Parts: sequence; C-alpha cells; structure tokens
Amino acid sequence: MINKLTDHEIEVIGFDADDTLWKNEDLFFEAQNEIKDILKQNSNNFDKELLKTEKSNLDFYGYGIKGFILSIIETSAKNPHEELKIESINQIIKLGKKMLNAPVNLIEDVEKVLSILSKKYKLILITKGDLLDQERKIKKSKLEKYFKHKKIVSEKNKQTYLKILDDLKIEPQNFLMVGNSFKSDVLPVLEIGGNGIHIPYKILWEYENINTNKYSKRYIKLDKILDITSIIN
Amino acid sequence: MINKLTDHEIEVIGFDADDTLWKNEDLFFEAQNEIKDILKQNSNNFDKELLKTEKSNLDFYGYGIKGFILSIIETSAKNPHEELKIESINQIIKLGKKMLNAPVNLIEDVEKVLSILSKKYKLILITKGDLLDQERKIKKSKLEKYFKHKKIVSEKNKQTYLKILDDLKIEPQNFLMVGNSFKSDVLPVLEIGGNGIHIPYKILWEYENINTNKYSKRYIKLDKILDITSIIN
Repeated sequence: MINKLTDHEIEVIGFDADDTLWKNEDLFFEAQNEIKDILKQNSNNFDKELLKTEKSNLDFYGYGIKGFILSIIETSAKNPHEELKIESINQIIKLGKKMLNAPVNLIEDVEKVLSILSKKYKLILITKGDLLDQERKIKKSKLEKYFKHKKIVSEKNKQTYLKILDDLKIEPQNFLMVGNSFKSDVLPVLEIGGNGIHIPYKILWEYENINTNKYSKRYIKLDKILDITSIIN
Repeated sequence: MINKLTDHEIEVIGFDADDTLWKNEDLFFEAQNEIKDILKQNSNNFDKELLKTEKSNLDFYGYGIKGFILSIIETSAKNPHEELKIESINQIIKLGKKMLNAPVNLIEDVEKVLSILSKKYKLILITKGDLLDQERKIKKSKLEKYFKHKKIVSEKNKQTYLKILDDLKIEPQNFLMVGNSFKSDVLPVLEIGGNGIHIPYKILWEYENINTNKYSKRYIKLDKILDITSIIN
C-alpha cells in the first residue's frame, strides 16, 4: 500500500455506490434478522444456509434484493425442521418490497467530496445489482448531477472495467476507482493497470471478503470518504 | 399505416430482443401452465390473479423472470382456498431457475436479416428486463457480432429512447425501431419523431396489449422479420 497516489495522472474517478456513497448492507443485515424472527430460526445455522444458497444462486439471479428474497424463500423451504407457514411467505415477500422501497441514506460527507472532486475530475458511477433498483437508488440519492456517466453492471471484473474504459476512451492509468469492496471495486482495476482507493464499510457481505495483503501497488486504503480530498483534490 | 418507410433517411436500426429476435413469451406461458399443475389451481382465476399481482409489482420488481417468480409465489400465498405446500414452493423456485437456464431459440430468419441489414445500417439491440438474464440471452443467441451497441434498460418509454439516441448522437428521423410490442418498441419511438416496424409475436403478454389503430404514420406492421428486407435493404 502506498500513501499517495500519483494524482497528476488521474483524470477520471469511478465510484461504487452501495456502501460507498450510501448505506446498503445494513438493509440486508436488518432484513436477515427480521426474517429469522419471522421464521423463528436458529440464528447461525440460518445465516450459514442462506449464504450457501445465495452463493449457489448468484449465477442464476445475480446481485440484488430480488435474488436475496428468492434465496431466503428457498432456504426457508429447504429447512426440514420447521413447517413453513403461508403467513411467513407473505411476510418475506412484504419485507422484500419494503427493502426495495427503502430510503437512500448517504454516507457522511459524500456530497461534499463529490462536489469538490467533480470540479476537477470526470466522475463515473459504477454499481452492480438489479437494474431498476439501482436506478431508483441513484434517483433517490440526488447525486446524479455529479456524475458524467452512470453504469449499472451485472458483475465487476476486469472485463467490465475494460469495457467501460474502452467505451469512454479512458486509459487505465488515468482512472481511479473508489469503493468499499476490494474484490469488486479495487482488485480488477489494479489488474488492468488502474488505481484504487479502498474504503471499507463497517459491514461487508461475507461473499465479498478476500485477503488484500498481497496487493501493494497503486492503491490506498482509507478510513472514510472525506480522506480522499487530502489525497487528491 | 404506410407501406414503405422513407428508407433513405434511416441510418440506425434498433431491435427489440424478446419475441423479436428470440422466443420468450412461450417460456412464461409454459411456466404458468406448469405452475397451475403444481398448485392444482383453477386455470382462469389464477391467470387473472397473477396478472393483477404482476402489474402491481412492476414498480417494485421491473420486468423479468425473478419478478415473475416472486409474483407467482405471492399469488400462491395469497390464495386462501388451498394450503400452500413447501414442496410447491420448492418446485416454483426450481422452475424459475429452469427458465433462467433455458436455451435461446431464435425466431426464423433472424440471423439472415441481421446479416443483410448490418452491412448497410448500424444495428443496436435495445431490450428491457433483468440485467444478468438479458446479458446471458444475448450471449447464448450468438447474435452479438451484428450489433454495434447493446442496451439493457428497465423501461422502454420516450425518455429511454431519447437518452439512447442522444448518447449515440443519432437523430430520431434517422432511427428505426423494430419490435413485437407496439407499446414498448414502436409507440414511444414514433412519439419522439422516429420510425417503427411492428412485428407481432404469436403470444403477447396481456400487459403489453394496446390499441394501435390511432397511430398511422411512420410505421409499418409486418408478419415476419424477413419482410423487413423487402422494405429496406
């Protein structure tokens, strides 16, 4: 890890959205607890089973609330210890809609940082998940005006970033990606020759958890988004 | 309705995908019948209830298989006449995955038409639905090579088309949209000054059904996709 990015090269900054600009994982965390109450499930076991189901369903459903709810229903229906009640299914469906309808809560200082950086850099929002849900959150966030482009993608890997940079005619060395997931937001960008800022959020979905120690170049880890302005401005 | 488009003006042709390039509604139609078998439901009533649920859920889920399956589960759980069995839920979830995994069956002569038109016009694929599912279908279709751009959108309205044309610097009068849904593929394009070709598919989702009689300019209705090549080539 280095302490200063070679900011004179950076022209375009990409921002992840969920848990980078606004809180997201809290919503899933709270929903998961509510579900366990509804199903009267043993806490740890259900979490483990759900994660297993979610992982095996990613290829089918991709990321987002609809897939999460379908995985919860599947996990509940698979459990042989407990009779699944119609009322529980109704409550799970209702909870999913509540999640889709939830307000967008910005992370502290996000607007301030975007306002400063958008004066000097071209900002791009790059987020993965359900198309309609992400569009809705972008709208609710009222942050649209700071972004030159908004890209909603189904996966964040090297190919995804290469395609975006290629479409927008941006060289990787002039690109910096900021996000809470090292695996999705930083690593693939480093691998194609770009730069990264990793700002962990207090909750990380277990699926996104990887060892970051062996990557030490062209990326900085920061505690909070406001710290970006002391690195580049 | 006119018999010939002023093809000397057309530079870019947009194609809808589901039920225009490949069969899609069959999949939902068959799944709905399978579901009624699983649930041992009275046919007409269930269809009506499901359509009602789907319509009221569109704002939450958008288009696509995941929302369809969630609406089926909701409709089943709402029905008070029948005890919902865990086994039925498992089967519904399984059916959803089978749908997501289904092969892509091209409509007759699609490849031939795209091959001819792509030599003279810039072709764009514009489809609505689940991001991951649409990407998967595009890949499976092996039609990617014919399209200069592929746009997956959450809704097809005037704003959607205006944004796409604006991003790609295309004037509406130089744009022709081809699709099976008058409501989604033709009407909004006519409204912004573009041209349309409407090729109905044998099954139309009730939600997409509108009266097309009052629109009579700059659009042609054709029986099959191959007929395009006698209108423009």
